[in-house]
Amino acid sequence: MAEKTLDKLFHDTLKDIYYAERAILKALPKMKRGAQSPELQQAFDQHKAETETQIERLQQVFEIIGKRAQGKTCPAIDGIIEEGEEVMAEYKGTPALDAGLIAAAQAVEHYEITRYGTLKRWAEVLGMDDAVKLLDATLQEESDTDEKLTALADSAANPHAAQAAE
Amino acid sequence: MAEKTLDKLFHDTLKDIYYAERAILKALPKMKRGAQSPELQQAFDQHKAETETQIERLQQVFEIIGKRAQGKTCPAIDGIIEEGEEVMAEYKGTPALDAGLIAAAQAVEHYEITRYGTLKRWAEVLGMDDAVKLLDATLQEESDTDEKLTALADSAANPHAAQAAE
Repeated sequence: MAEKTLDKLFHDTLKDIYYAERAILKALPKMKRGAQSPELQQAFDQHKAETETQIERLQQVFEIIGKRAQGKTCPAIDGIIEEGEEVMAEYKGTPALDAGLIAAAQAVEHYEITRYGTLKRWAEVLGMDDAVKLLDATLQEESDTDEKLTALADSAANPHAAQAAE
Repeated sequence: MAEKTLDKLFHDTLKDIYYAERAILKALPKMKRGAQSPELQQAFDQHKAETETQIERLQQVFEIIGKRAQGKTCPAIDGIIEEGEEVMAEYKGTPALDAGLIAAAQAVEHYEITRYGTLKRWAEVLGMDDAVKLLDATLQEESDTDEKLTALADSAANPHAAQAAE
């Protein structure tokens, strides 16, 4: 039996985030349809386009390690997306919907940030320079998206939801 | 029917993270028992002590909004913890175990970081200064823990797991 080491862990975690990215790709159009403000709808559109590129990058990383691109059920992203769906159902048509949707989207971003951060560091230790570049490109996009969502929340969604509460 | 606004969303999300913190408190001793290096075991012990304080701070925030401290099932943290348990079972006794455990613990941290970041910004908009201070104290601790885990991975767990792979 082959000893389970960092290369195996890297491969397993790659399958985890590959499943997660495809689940996110399916969830984003629903989140867009749920969003009230055109700015947030546009942010979800942009995230969908980025997710498509990120899935292609993952396929390149699978190629680098000589493995078939394949997902592995990721209960974490399933749970995060489920919470987003709960918020959409619970707050549909209310002033707090966009604030709740942004929070759900940021939970998705942070899951991606932690997984890509880990994979990038493992790729460094394993000396896979090309994989490091691909993973880092996605990591930067995820961090940027997270910041954009914070800005959207601060500028519009949170004040809107709070004003209605007064 | 009362309109659903930011104060309701704040309360719902507070219940979500309250459930999550208590789930984390239960998971940490298992992660400690699973960890191989004394440094990682100690990090899990420290995180457990911090989690106890963080739960008390959440109880204070519930008091501030005049609600009973109460959790609400959080499928996200359940999924994140489930993935940690899978890693422990799959990599038990192998050189990659600690690297995998650190990655699982960082996924937990990032879930907490996103939820506390959101709650803190909502508390600001709602003008709840005391809640902002409590949420910010926890947010800082979570970020510090995430950095400590990265340092532990870089200094010991990842090289150990990679060396064995050669």
